This record gives sequence, C-alpha cells and structure tokens, in this order.
Amino acid sequence: MNIGFVGVGRMGANMARRLKETGFHVTAVYDADRAVATKLATELGCAASQDVADVTAQSDVILTVVSDDAAMREIFLRDGDNLLVNARGKLFINCATVSPNVHVEIEGLAKRAGARTLEACMASSITQAREGTLYLMCGGDEQTFRDAQPVLEKLGSKVRYIGKAGEAAKVKALVNMVMNINTAGIAEGLGLGDALGLDLTMLREVFAETGAASRVLQTDGEDMQNRDHSCYFSAAHAAKDSGIALTLAEELSLDLPLARATKKQYDAMVQEGLGELDKSGIAELTFKNRHKHRGDHV
Amino acid sequence: MNIGFVGVGRMGANMARRLKETGFHVTAVYDADRAVATKLATELGCAASQDVADVTAQSDVILTVVSDDAAMREIFLRDGDNLLVNARGKLFINCATVSPNVHVEIEGLAKRAGARTLEACMASSITQAREGTLYLMCGGDEQTFRDAQPVLEKLGSKVRYIGKAGEAAKVKALVNMVMNINTAGIAEGLGLGDALGLDLTMLREVFAETGAASRVLQTDGEDMQNRDHSCYFSAAHAAKDSGIALTLAEELSLDLPLARATKKQYDAMVQEGLGELDKSGIAELTFKNRHKHRGDHV
Repeated sequence: MNIGFVGVGRMGANMARRLKETGFHVTAVYDADRAVATKLATELGCAASQDVADVTAQSDVILTVVSDDAAMREIFLRDGDNLLVNARGKLFINCATVSPNVHVEIEGLAKRAGARTLEACMASSITQAREGTLYLMCGGDEQTFRDAQPVLEKLGSKVRYIGKAGEAAKVKALVNMVMNINTAGIAEGLGLGDALGLDLTMLREVFAETGAASRVLQTDGEDMQNRDHSCYFSAAHAAKDSGIALTLAEELSLDLPLARATKKQYDAMVQEGLGELDKSGIAELTFKNRHKHRGDHV
Repeated sequence: MNIGFVGVGRMGANMARRLKETGFHVTAVYDADRAVATKLATELGCAASQDVADVTAQSDVILTVVSDDAAMREIFLRDGDNLLVNARGKLFINCATVSPNVHVEIEGLAKRAGARTLEACMASSITQAREGTLYLMCGGDEQTFRDAQPVLEKLGSKVRYIGKAGEAAKVKALVNMVMNINTAGIAEGLGLGDALGLDLTMLREVFAETGAASRVLQTDGEDMQNRDHSCYFSAAHAAKDSGIALTLAEELSLDLPLARATKKQYDAMVQEGLGELDKSGIAELTFKNRHKHRGDHV
C-alpha cells in the first residue's frame, strides 16, 4: 500500500517515519514549506511533490496533517491543484484538529470524486507520533474506518471509532477545550503559590495527590515551574482549538465562561508574541515575576 | 488522651466516630446546632457540651471542624464563652478550610493562653473521614505537629507537614481553587458534549484517556451526567474556598481569570438556591436542558 503525506511538520514527519519503518511504502510528501518536504523526502527516499495532486497520484492512502480549517480547505478545494484531482478509489485520512463541519464538507466532496475520507483526530503529541502510540479518535463511514485499520493501528496504540464524519472532531475539540482549561487552571495555582512563597515542588506533589490532580499537571506542571516552554503543543494551537469548541457552543447558545476565559489567555499569548511557546507557557501570564508582570522574555 | 470536638457536621461526626473506634476517649462534642451535638453524644456516649469552653475543660486535644472564618473567630474569640478559657496545656487541631491569616491570628491568641494550635486542612471528604483515610496538610509549630501525630495518624492515611501556621491553609486554598476550576471545566465539556448530542459515557471515557483527564473527572463526571448532586462538598463551600484563594491573589495584585470565572459560577449557584448541591451541581449551569436554561429544579 502506497502512502502519501500532506503537511509534514513535526507531527506529520514523525507519522511518515513510523509508517515507513513498519513496512509501508511512503511514496510522496508535500508541505507548504517546500524545504521541509524536500528534507523529509531525502531522509525517507521518496518524492517531494510540488503540488498536492501529485501526492494523490502517487498514493493509495493519503494522510493530511495540516494546521487549521483554512489549510484543509486549501488542499481539498483549491482551484487547479487539489487532493481530489483524479482521486477515484483513494482514501484520505485527515488528522488535523479542525471544525467538525469541515470534515463533513470534505467527505461530501470526496464522495463525488469517487474517493473516501476518514477523520483521525490525534490526542497526543510528537513523541507518540514517532513511536506509533497516538490516541486516535476516528470519524466517518464505519467501513472506511475498518479499511483504514492497517494504517491506523501502526500509528496509534488506541484507535477509537467515534461516529460519522464530524463526530470525532467534536470530541477532539472538547478534549482540547477541557485540557486547555485545566492547563490554565494549573498555571493560576502555581502562579499564586509562587507569589505566596510556597515551594512549588511540594505544591505540585500535593496537587497530584488531591482533587487538584490532572493529566496536564503531570505533563506541564514541572515545565511551568521551570519555565521550560519548548513546544509540543503550541499556545496558538490551544487558542485555535478552544475557539473551535466555543464556536460550537455559540451555535448552540451555550455560554461557557471557563472556556472563554481560557481562550482569552491563549489569545493574549498570541498577541504578546508568545504563541509559539508550548501551552505550558501560559504560566508567563500568571506568575508575578514573568512576562505579563515584568514584560521580560522567556 | 481525652478528645473533644467542636463542629460535628458530617465531617466532624465521622472523625469523632473514627477516633472513638481507634481507642480514644471522645469526652465532649459541641455544635452550633444543639440537636446535632446531642444526637452524636448519645451515639458516642459522651457529653453534649452547652458551650465551647466546656469542651476545652473536658479534653486534652480539641478538634474544630467549623464552616468558615466567621465560625472560627466565634469559637476562639467570642466574649464570655470561647475555647481559650482555661486552655493552658491544651492542643487545638483546626480542620476547617479558612483564610490563612485566621490560623496565624488564633495561634497567637492560643499561645498567650498557654495553649497550642495546629491547622490540619483536609483534602478529602466524608467517606475518608469515617475510614481514617483523610489527606491532611498540617501547618503550625513542628513540635506541635509531632505531638499531634497519634491523633492525626488515625484520621489520615497521608499526613503532611507543610510549614508554619497559615502555610497549610494556603496550600489547601490552592488545591480547592484548582479543583474547582477543573470541576467547572468538566461541566462545560460535558454540557457542550450533551448539547452536541454526543454519548456522554463515551465522552467521559475519552476525557479519561487524554489530556482532559483529571481527578474530578473521576469523582464528579458521572454524577454530572446522571444529575446526581447529593452533597459531599457543597457548591457553597466551593465558592467560599475559591474566594479565599482569590483574596490571597488580590492582596498580591495577581489576576486569575479562570479562578474568577469559577467563583462566579459557584456564586451563581448559591444565588440560584443551588448552594447545597454537591460541587458537581455546577453542571446545572452548563447543560442546556437543566436549571440555568430551563429554570427547573434538580
């Protein structure tokens, strides 16, 4: 089975490496940043496609790992060059966190082109992509999900069918909305603890043993304390994902004050030029002696 | 060693039961609600004191488990009847979640009366009180902490010395602030999931396996889904505890938008007459077909 990739940033590149080493033919990769695609193509010994239609031409299964709704629309709908040119019989597995309606729209267009799509939303990060231990939430036709299994099971240690197109994207948006709230909450707890002169290592231990415990406390708490914000999941992505959830809430006239406050914090990071920090960098806003209060840089 | 109790609501009563069955003499109990004290005294075969000074008179170690700063000040400072009357040599273990400065103030007054105080902030609930498996964070003089060990170790499975008076209360306020944020966040995630028509059991499973995971998801998620808000930790207490943390933050000119949004939600519950629901009842504000949107009752 020939595999193509569109969008080979750190996630996509690691997924391509993983599929190659588990025996798949990775035939073509494309990235909006041509140098990124060329470098990976050299490493993997495959083609660096100059347009996305070439990835479709060279592959049976095409994985897309792009950044947002606009990028998804561009690769599937762009006039002239798009993934659905001569796409009959192809299977697209779309991994970006985008709005649910984008998945529904693209599934319809693909169907008309004789192709199939599956959303495979990833609830893990770069390391897990490399190791094939992603948590994958899938949406789309159930038979398509079954047909994609050989690829999915090499990428993820947990592969879960959620429902029809758009459903996995809804769940993913909710996961990230709650994760971002918990992250912003930990940043406030540690920020106030620091201002009170408490030992933050002790405080994190107590948090971990009590009702304050959370997954993000484990993954981000120490980084907040040590101000280590090398990026696994950027503040800009956090802002985008909370925004997807808030748009869904608005469409349903549901007011979510915590999600709103969280998005405002991540938006503030972007505005302050901190958008490419890891999401743990939100501590820059809640610690007295850091960016927001001192104006200094990380 | 003779033990007295002041404040024998569900937590205090369970702690008294636990100490009695582990071999301590529970000699006297007091509660502002006299009927509550009388009932427990009958059960335990001890005195139901008519005033708090009588508890001091009949005990070596007095545990206080009252509701808030005002109640703490009343039992320790009230003109005429207070715990420090003839208190020389007595040890007070104060378990309520109150403002750190209240502990500091009372430690000073006790010292002048020849008595000692320890704060033992509890990060667990009614069941753990009965079973002697509380998580206890202690503040005060370290020798006092060591002297209180025989009692503390029967009440808690984890007993942790945090620092001088007020320090444990700070940590406790932070624990509850973060716990309340996480709780409010889960309520938003499940509320939006419900409005989107998602299967909430599936959604909770996914949350539990991803970055959205938290202790409160385990303890409160199912109750939110099932609208089971029988009270272990009330919304009113959540509002109070987030308020303690926010006051500390304000004193340090630290803005904590998530903590603020959370307190506002719990304050809204109190205003809407939902203050005695469990903290999980915050889902009444975030689910479309529940209290806030429908105006119906639990």
